[in-house]
Order: sequence, then C-alpha cells, then structure tokens
Amino acid sequence: MGTVFWSEVLGTAMLTLLGVGVVANHLLGRTKGNGGGWLLINFGWGLAVFAGVFVAWQSGAHLNPAVTVGIWTSGAEEYAPGVAVSIGSTLVYFLAELLGAFFGAVLAWLAYKQHYDEDLAPEAKLGTFATGPEIRSHAWNLVTEIIGTFVLVFVILMFGGTPSGLGPLAVALLVVGIGASLGGPTGYAINPARDLGPRLAHAVLPIRGKGGSDWAYAWVPVLGPILGALIAGGVFQLYPAANF
Amino acid sequence: MGTVFWSEVLGTAMLTLLGVGVVANHLLGRTKGNGGGWLLINFGWGLAVFAGVFVAWQSGAHLNPAVTVGIWTSGAEEYAPGVAVSIGSTLVYFLAELLGAFFGAVLAWLAYKQHYDEDLAPEAKLGTFATGPEIRSHAWNLVTEIIGTFVLVFVILMFGGTPSGLGPLAVALLVVGIGASLGGPTGYAINPARDLGPRLAHAVLPIRGKGGSDWAYAWVPVLGPILGALIAGGVFQLYPAANF
Amino acid sequence: MGTVFWSEVLGTAMLTLLGVGVVANHLLGRTKGNGGGWLLINFGWGLAVFAGVFVAWQSGAHLNPAVTVGIWTSGAEEYAPGVAVSIGSTLVYFLAELLGAFFGAVLAWLAYKQHYDEDLAPEAKLGTFATGPEIRSHAWNLVTEIIGTFVLVFVILMFGGTPSGLGPLAVALLVVGIGASLGGPTGYAINPARDLGPRLAHAVLPIRGKGGSDWAYAWVPVLGPILGALIAGGVFQLYPAANF
Amino acid sequence: MGTVFWSEVLGTAMLTLLGVGVVANHLLGRTKGNGGGWLLINFGWGLAVFAGVFVAWQSGAHLNPAVTVGIWTSGAEEYAPGVAVSIGSTLVYFLAELLGAFFGAVLAWLAYKQHYDEDLAPEAKLGTFATGPEIRSHAWNLVTEIIGTFVLVFVILMFGGTPSGLGPLAVALLVVGIGASLGGPTGYAINPARDLGPRLAHAVLPIRGKGGSDWAYAWVPVLGPILGALIAGGVFQLYPAANF
Repeated sequence: MGTVFWSEVLGTAMLTLLGVGVVANHLLGRTKGNGGGWLLINFGWGLAVFAGVFVAWQSGAHLNPAVTVGIWTSGAEEYAPGVAVSIGSTLVYFLAELLGAFFGAVLAWLAYKQHYDEDLAPEAKLGTFATGPEIRSHAWNLVTEIIGTFVLVFVILMFGGTPSGLGPLAVALLVVGIGASLGGPTGYAINPARDLGPRLAHAVLPIRGKGGSDWAYAWVPVLGPILGALIAGGVFQLYPAANF
Repeated sequence: MGTVFWSEVLGTAMLTLLGVGVVANHLLGRTKGNGGGWLLINFGWGLAVFAGVFVAWQSGAHLNPAVTVGIWTSGAEEYAPGVAVSIGSTLVYFLAELLGAFFGAVLAWLAYKQHYDEDLAPEAKLGTFATGPEIRSHAWNLVTEIIGTFVLVFVILMFGGTPSGLGPLAVALLVVGIGASLGGPTGYAINPARDLGPRLAHAVLPIRGKGGSDWAYAWVPVLGPILGALIAGGVFQLYPAANF
Repeated sequence: MGTVFWSEVLGTAMLTLLGVGVVANHLLGRTKGNGGGWLLINFGWGLAVFAGVFVAWQSGAHLNPAVTVGIWTSGAEEYAPGVAVSIGSTLVYFLAELLGAFFGAVLAWLAYKQHYDEDLAPEAKLGTFATGPEIRSHAWNLVTEIIGTFVLVFVILMFGGTPSGLGPLAVALLVVGIGASLGGPTGYAINPARDLGPRLAHAVLPIRGKGGSDWAYAWVPVLGPILGALIAGGVFQLYPAANF
Repeated sequence: MGTVFWSEVLGTAMLTLLGVGVVANHLLGRTKGNGGGWLLINFGWGLAVFAGVFVAWQSGAHLNPAVTVGIWTSGAEEYAPGVAVSIGSTLVYFLAELLGAFFGAVLAWLAYKQHYDEDLAPEAKLGTFATGPEIRSHAWNLVTEIIGTFVLVFVILMFGGTPSGLGPLAVALLVVGIGASLGGPTGYAINPARDLGPRLAHAVLPIRGKGGSDWAYAWVPVLGPILGALIAGGVFQLYPAANF
C-alpha cells in the first residue's frame, strides 16, 4: 500500500499544482496569462490531469475520491492491478488524494508567491485555490456538481469499451470538455480532494491579504462529487452495455 | 435491440448535455465561461461527441440520425457489430437519438438552472438549446447545413481507410473543425436529433422568461443534415477510393 | 492514376472548403465566429488538413504541391503505395490539387453566401480566399513562406522516424503550429494550391462587391512554398539521421 | 556522435524557430496573430516541441539541457538507443542544444524581419527571444523555474510507465500545460538552451531599435531549470513506483 499511497500523493499533487496554477495565472495580477479566459483554464486543468495520470500510474491514477468511489460502486474488484478494493485501501486512496491535493496547492502558491503578494480582492485569491459558485444556492450548486461528476466518472467507467491509443489524453480531454460545458455555474470541482486540499492550504498558508476560506460552501464540492460518483457507479451496474 | 436503444439514448444524452451546456456557459449571464468565444463552443461540442462516443460503444455510437442515414446509404450491411441495417433498426436509432437528445438538454437545463432564471433575451435562452441562423434564409441556411453534414458524414465513412489510434478523438476533432469552419452561418446543427430534441425540451420545460421555440426554422436543421448525409452516402458509393 | 486524381481532388477540396470557411467565419460580417481570433483560424486550417487526409488516403494525401515536390526531391520512389514518382504522376498531383482547391473554395463561398453578400471591404472578402502579407515586400514575404514550408515538408519527411498512433493528427497539429508560429507575416500559404485555387475561384465567382484578386502577389505563395519544399527535400537527403 | 550532434541541432533549431515565432506573432506589431493571447503562445511552444521531437528522433530528442541532466541523474545508462551516458556525450548534447537554439532564433528573426523593423519598445523585441519575469526577484523567479522544470522532467521520466500511442504529442501537451499553469510569473523558460541561445541571437543580430539583452537575468533561466532537473532525477530515483 505504500506504493499506492505515494503514487496518489504525487499524482494528485501534480494535479493541483498545475490546476491551481492555471487559475492563478488567469486571476492574479501582473501574470503573463492574466485574463487568459475560460478555455485556457479548461486546458490547464485537463493537462493537469494528464500530467498527474502519468505520475500515478502504479495506483491506477485515481487522483480523485469520486473516481475511487465510482470504481468501488461499479462492482470492480481492483482499484489498480494488484490493489484489491477494500475499506482499508479506499481510505488509503482518500487520504493520499487529500494530502497530495494540499501539497500541490502549496507548490502552486510558491510558484506564484509574488503575485499572491499583490493587492487583490481576497475572493480572487481564494478563487485560485478552491471553487465557488457564481450564484450561490447550495441545492442547485450541488445539482451542478452531481451532474458534472456523473459525466466524469461514468465516462471513465465506459472507457474500457472503446480501445484507443490515447492513454491519459482521454481523461484529460474529458476534463477539458466537462469544464467547458458544465463548469459555468460552480467552477467544476468534480473532485472532493481538488477542492478540500487546496482550501485547507488556503486556510493555513500565510497568504498576504487573504480573507476567509468560505467553509460554508466547502461541503458542496465534497458531497456533490461523491453523490455523482455513486450514481455513475449505480447506472454502470444497471447498464446492459457495460459488460465489456 | 434493447442494448442498441439504451446505448444511443445514453450516448446522445451525453452529447446534448455537454453541447447545450457549453452554449449555456457562453451565452447565459453570470457564468464563469460567459462570452468564452467560438473556439470554446467548438471544443465543447467536439468533446461532447467524444464523451458520447465512449458511452455508446455498443451501438456504434451514431448519436445522430444523419450518421445513421449516411451508413445506410453507403451500402453497409451493419450499423454496429451484430446490428443489421433494416427499416426497423433504423427507426430504433432515430427514436433513441431523439429521446437521448431531449433528455440531455433537460439535464443541461438543470445544471444551469439558476442562470436560466436570470433576466436575458428569450432568443439567447433558446440559442442554448437549438440552432438558429445569423441571417435567415431557409434556402441558404439549408445549403450550409447540407455542406456541413456532408463533411461530417463523408469523412466518418472514410475513416476506415486510415488506421490510427485516435479512437473517438477523430470524430471529436472533426466536429471541432466543422464548427470552426462551417458553423458561422447557422451554428452547425449537422444532426437532426441535436437540434430537434433540445428544441422540444425548450418547448416543454418551465424555463423562466422563455419565448417561442422558433418552429418555423426547425425543419431546416432536420432536412439539411439528412440531405447532406444522403449525398455523402451516394458519393461514397461512387468514389473509386472507398473500397478499403 | 484516376484513383489518385480523384483522391487528391476530393482531399484538397475538403482542405480549402474548411480552410476558406474558417477565415470566412472570422472575417465576414454577422457570422457566429466573427473575430474569433488567430488560434481559431489555426485550428480551423489544421483540422481542414485532418479531414482532407482521411478523404485522400488512396493517394497518400499530399493535398499540396509543395508536399509532392518535397517527396520527389527527398529521393523517394513512390508518392503513395503503388504510385511511382514520375513527371507524369507529378503533374497529375499538381493538377488535382489545384482543381480540388478551386472547387473547395466554391463550396465555402456557397456555405457563406449570404455573408459574402454583406457590405464589407473587398480586401476582407479576398482575404477569406487567398493569403496576403500584412507588410508587403515580395522578397521578405518570400522568405517567410520558404521558412514556413520548409518546416512543413521537412517535418513530414521526418515523420517516419517516430512511430505513433496519431495518424492524420500529426500533420494537422503541425499545421496548427506553423500557423501559430510562422503565420503572422503572410498568413501561411505554405501550399501553392491552397492559395492559387481559391484565388482563381475569387476571380471567377460572382461575389457581391468584390475587388481585384491581387494577382501581383499571387506568385509569392506559389514560388515560396516550392522553394521551401526543395530545400526540405535537399536537407533530408543530406541529413545523416534520415535513413529510417 | 556526429548524428547525435546534428540531430539535436536541427531539433532544437526547430523548437526555437517555432517558439520564438509564436511570441513574435503575439508581441510584434502588424502581425496576423497580434495580441493572440496566452493560449496561442502555449500551443505555439507545445507544437514547437512536437515538431522538434520528430526532427531529432535519432538522438532521443532532448532539445533541452534540463532533459539531458534529468536523464543523467535518473540513473539511466543511455541518452538514446546506442548513445551511452558520459561526460563527453553530455557536453555534445549541451553544445548542440545551445547551437540549435541560437540558429532557430535567427531563422525566426528572418521570418518576422519586417515586423522587427517596426517601431516597438525594445523590451517587447527582447521578449520574443528570451524570457523575463513580470515581477523581478531573482530568488522567486528561480523558484518558479525550478518548479516548472521539475514538472517537465519528472513527468517525462515517468512517461515509460503508461503506454500510449501519443508519441511526441505527450511531451507537446505537457509543455502546453506547464505554460498555461506555471508560465505566468517568468514565461516558462524550463530549458536553459531555449533561453540562452535566442538571447545570444538577440545580442549579436542587427535588430533595428533593439535594447540590451538583459544579461542580469540570464542566469536564472539557466540555473533554475538545471536545479529543477536535478530534483526531478533525484525524486525519480527515490520514488518506489519508478521501476517500470
């Protein structure tokens, strides 16, 4: 399990290093990518997944508790070759994903340190770490996160039916697509660790001029993705076409 | 045929969930991708096809009555491995594609519910569901849809001649390209179900401040794609290079 | 040779249909992609090549006299499996490429007919068909086209050394890259047929409010690409690493 | 070693020809891609790597002293099939990469000659050749370059664990992603040759209205990438998952 643990830590750290980085590039002042736009952010997050998947190949590169939950509820027997599904291994994935996500956000903060030191609305600084809705409504924000994560996890579960040479590019492009299409209302957490880990980093790091970490919203991008993953795993089990 | 039916329903629902979603992200108020631009929309629709193809692998992932018509008129004997071309199977594809397209648009509306509730011109709200021409002329709009769908279906029919490891990425990129190049006048329906299904959803859903569903135009993105597909199938049969 | 001829005609027509289309979408009035930007244009042309290569698989998908010249001078014995390099076959490629490029531009004009009918500077209407320099200087414009075409043809000749499953995507991305990087001064013809065919179409089509076809510049995007291809073929022959 | 030398010269020249080109397109006056934005620049550099890798296949396509250092410190025995790791071969790679980077920048200058002749701030002209920080602080700029290069080299070292048919596209997309996510503060040199070679070209070329070459900063994009590569090689050796 040590290999699985470190594999997920490093992979998820890579994910949030690049993911937090692209939002910092877009939102923070005096960066070269300032105001680079939504497609830049979508490609940044997609390619963050791309890099993370290569790094975490030995653990099956979940990088996301929702993916772990989705595989679990899909009825699979292994999380990765040689890694049995169990309560113990599930908790190892969860912990490693959260820890990696925290650590990657710290690195992204270091890479953009001087830009975080600039004067800027505290909300924008938080916005580089954690997701937040454009129109706040816990119920509807939850619906959006459930739908987005359902797409992510269900399509990943269906990957096996269509052979291709795309490797990690398939999931990277899927994340680009979900961001472009379903990221508008809440910023597509679709991953509890991706949101909670950097939010914890925001809370503990000595960021100049930071405000609160918006813990009132923090449960939405945790619960929504888990519910979406449960639905994806359930539909996969019911779906007649899923026996590859 | 049950497997084919559900496969096409789920795949086409995935297509319009993500496709309607990206236009909603671009057009509706207070989204994170507001005004994200044409290339964002093109990638959104291309990756919507990408996700839909993975989901609908057991039915050959038509997701589009024009593709079904094109395969039919190309002289093929099967729509997918083990699924014979017949009037009955053709109708199953048509019905499943329309139903899926309707259902996906409903999900996209739920994902963007609060943004649809914002004050906005009724035309913009309709524009997220169905296509509409920038300069209205049924004849020329039909020409544009015929040409765009010819490209889609003819290139798909020719895929077999060039082996690659791209899998579903090939058709996804083709859709990005058709959108970038031929989507300017009418918004590239190039798929009767993609337009008619979400238009029906627009008509029946309780969307706040919605206007009419522009049924006067609705036949153009149905007939145009079917004519384009018939031409593609015919040219494919005549084309000396098409015997792979 | 009939198969080769029609294969190149259809493939190059696909290329300029989509390529002229994306510039029309960007430049003409009241399109959905109006002002969509340089990256949109780059992806449009890259994916135009992508579609054209699938269509022209039986002739090796040159789609470009410069590619034909580059293969010729690289010392290859065949233009495509079973198609020997000779003066006769070279002329068949040239003629088919020019004819296809003309025909594709006509289709693009039909797809955007109403937008060409709008009031617009004649230079913009010509700009959708043929390339033109931002700063006119035949000598320096020639240099730019030589360098751009050298990159295109030399990298295509080197494709054989690195196996991949990318298929037609490799050349498509190469065209995106050349456009992004070297298209700034002259609009990257890098293909005599791509420029001359649509320019001829511009000259003969009854385009509303069109001006001249700028024949004074027309030789630059013909001669430049051919010189660039000759250099690419020569360097390839000299290059010690080129014996795959 | 002659083959390795010329392979790296040509590949790295291709890299900086296209890389310097895309920044020139974005920054210089009266280009077609003027103000094209950060995503255009990211794709330009990513596809510059793509083209360079195809050209330099016989030497393993390092194109970057940091990659050479990373392979060295990872414990590998060969830089490319048949090319043993040694001090001598390392120096050949370094020299070839620097020479190629210089030569490619000269070609990019020729391609954009007339645009370099336009009146423009000297800083912008230098900015097309070499990187520079948005907020100058040698220590923090170094940190950013270390982190960015660590991602590049570590993920490249991990490529072996995940088979795919992407070939040179994998590293191209990795560079797009690093640029989008970590390029904001310093412009992502992540390659000593990419920065030093074009900076030398800027110093010696007769560029109209050029200013200084900012040698005070030049050591940062040399040292940072080398330190990042050393860390990547070291972590790779420690990482339990790295034995493919």
